[in-house]
Amino acid sequence: MTEHSLWRLSRALHRAINERQFDEFAAMVDEDIDWAIYGPIDMFPFLGARMGKDAVLDTVRQIANNVHIRKVERETLMLDDGAAATMVRCAMTTQDSDKPITARLAQFLQFRAGKLSRLRILIDTFDLVEQTLGRPIDLPRIGSFA
Amino acid sequence: MTEHSLWRLSRALHRAINERQFDEFAAMVDEDIDWAIYGPIDMFPFLGARMGKDAVLDTVRQIANNVHIRKVERETLMLDDGAAATMVRCAMTTQDSDKPITARLAQFLQFRAGKLSRLRILIDTFDLVEQTLGRPIDLPRIGSFA
Repeated sequence: MTEHSLWRLSRALHRAINERQFDEFAAMVDEDIDWAIYGPIDMFPFLGARMGKDAVLDTVRQIANNVHIRKVERETLMLDDGAAATMVRCAMTTQDSDKPITARLAQFLQFRAGKLSRLRILIDTFDLVEQTLGRPIDLPRIGSFA
Repeated sequence: MTEHSLWRLSRALHRAINERQFDEFAAMVDEDIDWAIYGPIDMFPFLGARMGKDAVLDTVRQIANNVHIRKVERETLMLDDGAAATMVRCAMTTQDSDKPITARLAQFLQFRAGKLSRLRILIDTFDLVEQTLGRPIDLPRIGSFA
């Protein structure tokens, strides 16, 4: 049984971000990749949409400049031929302040001939922003709860 | 070929929230359901973790009191025996102000004997909060982007 591309990609992305070894990751990215990590790009310019391998490699280098991954805990996993969906809790530190941040991410990946061709990541961004700021944002309570 | 439980659940949940017809949805919820929608519960008390059918029905009633669904656009879908993962853009209005809000959600669902036994929903919550407030939250730009 062949190993699912998700595992090879996860290791390659981990090495790219933590060790700045980008070759394995680059070899796994489709030239026409369609990539989007949803979130506030004003605060985190490495989030957002990217089209094509060059733009994706550039953004992964920016992520490596800003974030160090401490631990990835997989909470939910679905694998299919050439696709994967997973929810993870990712413990990181920021490179500039060494501040610990834990974010929950949903990842939807598609592979073409073993290479990553589509990525969508959704993050509990409000929690991420509050942790990054290091303080809570005051929110009104909305609605009726009778 | 039997219809996947996801579709029946989607219709039942839609009817519960928009028409306050809770019976079909209730019939599809496992007694021991493990339910979590991640997000700022100070602002949206109907988010958060719920254990068991009664707590889930109660929270879906609260959602129905606060939100009306306009349109659900499915962007990504994975189906497996007894499980589903999907990313959707959900256009809603709040019941009190009729304000239109569009949120991106990742849903991970597990079914046991055709009933929903586990739900995890992750939302791009910062975007959701800003839309609900009706104004942007000022954020610093972090990190280095050389």
